[in-house]
Amino acid sequence: MAASINRQVVLTARPDGNPRESDFEMREGAMPAPGAGQLLVRTIWLSLDPYMRLRIGDNEQYFPAVPLGDVVIGGAISQVVASRHSDFAEGDYIEAYSGWQDYAVVDGGAARKVDATLGPLSTALGVLGMPGLTAYLGLIDVGKPEPGDTVVVSAASGAVGAIVGQVAKIAGCRAVGIAGSERKNAYLTDELGFDAAINYKTDDIAAALDRACPNGINIYFENVGGAVSEAVYPRLAPRARVVVCGGVSQYNLKGPQTTVSNLQNILFTEAKVGGFNIFSYEARYEDGRQRLARWLAEGRLKYKEDVVHGLENATAAFLRFFDGEVFGKLMVKVAQ
Amino acid sequence: MAASINRQVVLTARPDGNPRESDFEMREGAMPAPGAGQLLVRTIWLSLDPYMRLRIGDNEQYFPAVPLGDVVIGGAISQVVASRHSDFAEGDYIEAYSGWQDYAVVDGGAARKVDATLGPLSTALGVLGMPGLTAYLGLIDVGKPEPGDTVVVSAASGAVGAIVGQVAKIAGCRAVGIAGSERKNAYLTDELGFDAAINYKTDDIAAALDRACPNGINIYFENVGGAVSEAVYPRLAPRARVVVCGGVSQYNLKGPQTTVSNLQNILFTEAKVGGFNIFSYEARYEDGRQRLARWLAEGRLKYKEDVVHGLENATAAFLRFFDGEVFGKLMVKVAQ
Repeated sequence: MAASINRQVVLTARPDGNPRESDFEMREGAMPAPGAGQLLVRTIWLSLDPYMRLRIGDNEQYFPAVPLGDVVIGGAISQVVASRHSDFAEGDYIEAYSGWQDYAVVDGGAARKVDATLGPLSTALGVLGMPGLTAYLGLIDVGKPEPGDTVVVSAASGAVGAIVGQVAKIAGCRAVGIAGSERKNAYLTDELGFDAAINYKTDDIAAALDRACPNGINIYFENVGGAVSEAVYPRLAPRARVVVCGGVSQYNLKGPQTTVSNLQNILFTEAKVGGFNIFSYEARYEDGRQRLARWLAEGRLKYKEDVVHGLENATAAFLRFFDGEVFGKLMVKVAQ
Repeated sequence: MAASINRQVVLTARPDGNPRESDFEMREGAMPAPGAGQLLVRTIWLSLDPYMRLRIGDNEQYFPAVPLGDVVIGGAISQVVASRHSDFAEGDYIEAYSGWQDYAVVDGGAARKVDATLGPLSTALGVLGMPGLTAYLGLIDVGKPEPGDTVVVSAASGAVGAIVGQVAKIAGCRAVGIAGSERKNAYLTDELGFDAAINYKTDDIAAALDRACPNGINIYFENVGGAVSEAVYPRLAPRARVVVCGGVSQYNLKGPQTTVSNLQNILFTEAKVGGFNIFSYEARYEDGRQRLARWLAEGRLKYKEDVVHGLENATAAFLRFFDGEVFGKLMVKVAQ
């Protein structure tokens, strides 16, 4: 039974540097009605991800920006309340980029039915969703791991990084994670099976990489940019691959980004550096999801969720990516 | 009839920043004698190339450094004076990395017989030699040009860059060259058929790139690094490719290189940046050479040589890469 009002978080200002609470506003809208071919859905889980910082900025290169006054975009798992599309029935669970709101109208063609047999519902936004596919397809399709490779991943305890390291292990590689606390690093090595973990806040990153990667770095999965990136490039092994998946340390910079990737090292090592945007790999999603689901069922993939309750807390939770701490896949439980 | 002494240019000091005359010394050695399987050859043409700066430095990542006191390494075309290898006869012309000296002993297995029917002898060091193959294989194998692409090449009037632009035109692309004088740029557009040319010394590089590449840059063939590179990266088109072939603006830097390649743009455009070292592509040489020779014969490839006479002038000519001017393929005519 749907309520008569629909709470929505809208973007009221483009962030100037670090996003702030005041860039967002909660408003109450009318309940939307589905047209032909559409679904009315109720949001259950909302996914919070660092890339969303790019979508609320004025950068149009990566993806169209969310217009001011519009509902903040984001992936969600919802339940169908009313269906006017023959592929969906009331009660179905779907994944769609339906944004930060209690209810949404979604085109049937833009919704994906969630297969609840693959894992708990929330995994459709994590290990079996966009972050898991980003890790799997970025590592496999761009990184091209070979057994025996040393794979370094930054933001390693995050939703993407943790899967990168575990898939690297499955592929016969050594996994070295870079994260921001001892607690996260202990999780990487003790629970996820990473071979080594580096604390970018307290370790000398360059010296720690030398210790953890005595034969150099064959694959670097880049999630952060900045100082970590600068320490990695001089340590690339011959024919190394760099997967440029994200650069969260750079997203809030106001001036030109200053990451030094050191082209000389790319020349000397004949490295391949490839930008990776998961949204270009849709044709590969199902293959990736089936493999991840199998490993999940076999207990070879573990995951951790950082759950916030209530749509009203989505903004504050999102801001933790930039000025707080996130440990695991950050999600908002909007409804039961 | 061989002389009894062999003049040799040896490396006496590792250059500290820009190489200087005093880092090299001419000495007179004894005439070498070929052992079994070897050839005694007389140098006719010596190739001077920017990459040689890397081989006389202390960087071991790219290629082993020339030891102090050793003959400076470099490609050369020579004539066989005496052969103790069944594949070669007296009078044959060969290509080998036999260094800066009048005579050399070369292993038969390290020598390549030059096919004089493909073009003038000197082209075996230029358009049909290492520079031409660097241009062809770097562009084709790493750049992967598609008809309609806009290809930007730096050091565009050089031995590599000039071929990159002309092969790009043959492949149905637009070619935009970046060089350091009006005379060079007129040569690129008026004689070689480049669509546009930019003077990095006098033009605002960014604004000029915007004018010359209104739809962005699909392929950047990188020979220089530094400021040119920084202007190019923000203008990459979606799914652009960057061939990192050289970085001559960076070779003499004493501190860490500061080229900013802006990883964010690699992420946003899903660009592929690949280091390219021609010496890893030996299996592709003959295919490349045959194609280049055909285009040369058809008049579709033009080339320009910057010829210096006498081994004693090799050092001063080489230094022109860094503090002077080179226009065309730089070569030393050592003997007739």
